[in-house]
Amino acid sequence: MVEPTTFVLFGATGDLAKRKIYPALYNLFLEEKLPAAFSLVGLGRRELSDEVFRANVEASLRQFSRRQPADAAKLNEFLRAFRYSVLDIGCKEDYEKLLRMIEQREQALDLTPNRMFYLSVGPEYFETIADNIQASGLGSANGWKRLVIEKPFGHDLQSARELNEKLSRAFEEHEIYRIDHYLGKPMVQKLEVLYQSNPVLQALWSNRHIANVQITASETVGVEARAGYYDHVGAVRDMFQNHMLQLLMMLASNLPYGSNSDTVRYKKKKVMEALEPLSKQDVHAHVVRGQYTAGTLQGKPVAGYTSEPGIGPDSMNDTFIAARLKIDDFFWRGVPFYIRTGKRMSEKATRIVIEFKEPAMQSSAVSHTGKTPNLLIFEINPVEGIILQLNTRDPQQQGEFKPIRVDFYEGNDNAPEAYESLIRDAMHGDPTFFAHWDEVELAWQWVQPILEAFQENLVPLHRYEAGTQGPAAAHAMLAEDGFRWWFDELSEKEEETIEGEQYAYHTNH
Amino acid sequence: MVEPTTFVLFGATGDLAKRKIYPALYNLFLEEKLPAAFSLVGLGRRELSDEVFRANVEASLRQFSRRQPADAAKLNEFLRAFRYSVLDIGCKEDYEKLLRMIEQREQALDLTPNRMFYLSVGPEYFETIADNIQASGLGSANGWKRLVIEKPFGHDLQSARELNEKLSRAFEEHEIYRIDHYLGKPMVQKLEVLYQSNPVLQALWSNRHIANVQITASETVGVEARAGYYDHVGAVRDMFQNHMLQLLMMLASNLPYGSNSDTVRYKKKKVMEALEPLSKQDVHAHVVRGQYTAGTLQGKPVAGYTSEPGIGPDSMNDTFIAARLKIDDFFWRGVPFYIRTGKRMSEKATRIVIEFKEPAMQSSAVSHTGKTPNLLIFEINPVEGIILQLNTRDPQQQGEFKPIRVDFYEGNDNAPEAYESLIRDAMHGDPTFFAHWDEVELAWQWVQPILEAFQENLVPLHRYEAGTQGPAAAHAMLAEDGFRWWFDELSEKEEETIEGEQYAYHTNH
Repeated sequence: MVEPTTFVLFGATGDLAKRKIYPALYNLFLEEKLPAAFSLVGLGRRELSDEVFRANVEASLRQFSRRQPADAAKLNEFLRAFRYSVLDIGCKEDYEKLLRMIEQREQALDLTPNRMFYLSVGPEYFETIADNIQASGLGSANGWKRLVIEKPFGHDLQSARELNEKLSRAFEEHEIYRIDHYLGKPMVQKLEVLYQSNPVLQALWSNRHIANVQITASETVGVEARAGYYDHVGAVRDMFQNHMLQLLMMLASNLPYGSNSDTVRYKKKKVMEALEPLSKQDVHAHVVRGQYTAGTLQGKPVAGYTSEPGIGPDSMNDTFIAARLKIDDFFWRGVPFYIRTGKRMSEKATRIVIEFKEPAMQSSAVSHTGKTPNLLIFEINPVEGIILQLNTRDPQQQGEFKPIRVDFYEGNDNAPEAYESLIRDAMHGDPTFFAHWDEVELAWQWVQPILEAFQENLVPLHRYEAGTQGPAAAHAMLAEDGFRWWFDELSEKEEETIEGEQYAYHTNH
Repeated sequence: MVEPTTFVLFGATGDLAKRKIYPALYNLFLEEKLPAAFSLVGLGRRELSDEVFRANVEASLRQFSRRQPADAAKLNEFLRAFRYSVLDIGCKEDYEKLLRMIEQREQALDLTPNRMFYLSVGPEYFETIADNIQASGLGSANGWKRLVIEKPFGHDLQSARELNEKLSRAFEEHEIYRIDHYLGKPMVQKLEVLYQSNPVLQALWSNRHIANVQITASETVGVEARAGYYDHVGAVRDMFQNHMLQLLMMLASNLPYGSNSDTVRYKKKKVMEALEPLSKQDVHAHVVRGQYTAGTLQGKPVAGYTSEPGIGPDSMNDTFIAARLKIDDFFWRGVPFYIRTGKRMSEKATRIVIEFKEPAMQSSAVSHTGKTPNLLIFEINPVEGIILQLNTRDPQQQGEFKPIRVDFYEGNDNAPEAYESLIRDAMHGDPTFFAHWDEVELAWQWVQPILEAFQENLVPLHRYEAGTQGPAAAHAMLAEDGFRWWFDELSEKEEETIEGEQYAYHTNH
């Protein structure tokens, strides 16, 4: 049973609402996962009638929902809960008006005054909105209140702390749901289940057997329409501080069976606390900063970053980052974690690759006959699956080993979107798959020396051709440890190029 | 380089020659794996000209070869090596005539007199042929000689020892190649490679992680045209003593990398020596004897065993056997091996299932929510593949776990047949995938109390309906240990039936 909820949506005419929030709510409605008593108030700058607002919501469902609204009666039942109110974010009176409207609806529908404030607006408005919720009495009813916010949560450690301080005046930590939509991806949510429920994975899951872990989130898109924003944040803030470190925490936290959200958060925090910190002077040795140049993607020429509309010709912004991280705990000591993310790479993919060690008993004779390490791969996006890469050899063809891939892909083309499970969890009051302030703060803390080293240009900016898997330096970093990035479907020609670049890198530094 | 070889084929007009040997030789020829200097002499009771013999061989290729003889010139080049000679197995003069013919061919072709005697005839002729090869001087040339024989190798421990004694007068052990065609199956040959070259398998491969091993070879066919023979031998001699125990040895021997045939044989022998012996009185507790009754297979009614043509109505022959075996060595102590094989079962399949333990740290709460043990499955026949069964659960649907199968199947529909690799190995003088006398003897020795217990009716004969996975007693045997046979695609209805039978079984004993 989900408790009665009033869903107060700031930014109701915005892009995220149309693409993600309305479709998620609609699919939850179809699956009878919305509260039986549910009311939504959409807020925006523009004047809109309820009818136009509902028509806009319907249009967004037709465009973005994984299930199309086929049944008119059903659709109307869904939209009946939707109201719209104009709101100037800085205007106190508008919040008081909103409070009266919500109270009326709550009375009319006999709803417990549980209110979920979803801030689908820029972070620069978070503080004002929170303050006004507080001041207007919107957050003082005799039910629960929750605040759902989207990234970015701060621009660096200092600003994140300030933001949190401000939000804390209106909401307690347990009332704040920080969305990191990577935590809503089904395979990410399954990582803990897979570990808990599979003895073979548990048996293999330690620094005794794991050589290294590689987490990649590569995009093929460039900076697109977000140039102004992106040039200001770069890959480290846009992807690394949040999504990538959350993937690291989810993988590395070895959750015991039956973990509740407290355990999950405790364990994730422990992982972050065990991360060996970098000093600003060390960043160059463990972090590779990259920026794409013109290149070819899927057969088409694409522009370099500094030629993108809205980007200055001398921008030093990072469109790629690769880092080597070490978790100094009982499980992971001695197992490097390599993380990379970037734009305009050769493939759109989010995956985790676990590379296993060769056992000590293994004859060295084996390694030179085409054998590759055993790999366990979690495919997170765009496909979801598990792959185990083993070696085999035809005994009748003495010689070459070849890898075989034992794989499993979820056949479900119509899986719930991340936003569906996250919104549902928030309505249930389940914070398991949301980012706790402790995690956010520790992540900024870990990233802060990188931000400063980039800012002060203590780290070279490596150019990489669009359509490749990042700069040669990112490959060289693994090569230093005797490893390589797996699953980089590079042609041999490309590999030669990279070796050439690698050489240049080594001689230049 | 394969040395020059004269392939002397006894039983050249027989079924095995046509179905397996000629197609195997032809495919080896196409792959240039036959000796450059190769001569074949086919022997049979009937008078045949070389031309008719070659025409018969060609016909067998057209019917049974995985590659069709398309190129007439190629085909003729292959057949050119084929000669035929009539031979009465018991007639010494015929062997002398054969010797002269072979010597002539060897001189004409300038062949080193390496002679491979392939006995594709009934075992009752083995002794006579071996003696005559010896007496005629056929085996005394200045090259190597090898004897290739097919099963059955004896009818029990005593007769097997006598046969071996007799063959030993003409051939030394290293000259005898006992074909067990299960050892020629690609997945069986890969078992050692998979173990050697995959750290994750090595890490899991011990009694610390493995709960039990299940080896199944189920057939859907009944006794067919072999009634007279089969009713005399039963499943224990036809399948268990040879093929099933060979699969056990191949799986359990944990071969180190770079094992040569001596190591393989040494390790296989060690496994057999470590098998806990059964006494005749214990057989009933660890072995289930079964015989099929009338039933339904793939929707068609099929007769019971005792109604098959050529089988007496009161035959007590075993068409099914299941056994629990224990290997008392460092690796396998405490891990039961369950082996079963039978005719008229629901599925044609040879597979090995390795069931993993739940780790001690696992909460007992997990077991009652649809979770199944982790399984590693080697599919041997008719498909070849590896499956890893893990558990997963959608965190958004709290509750049921579901198994997922991470699987790999060889996509090769045109894989070499077992006989190709075995014949090639014999010509190369590589005995790795042949049964050594020590293994054969130890297998008979282990099986002997079963033969006697069956003979003396110390073990009940459990009837099982054709089209099922054997008698309820075979399921009850695993249930005693808290286990079950995996991959028995039973419908729920059938499972109910079996539970009913199981009850009857328990109350009757």
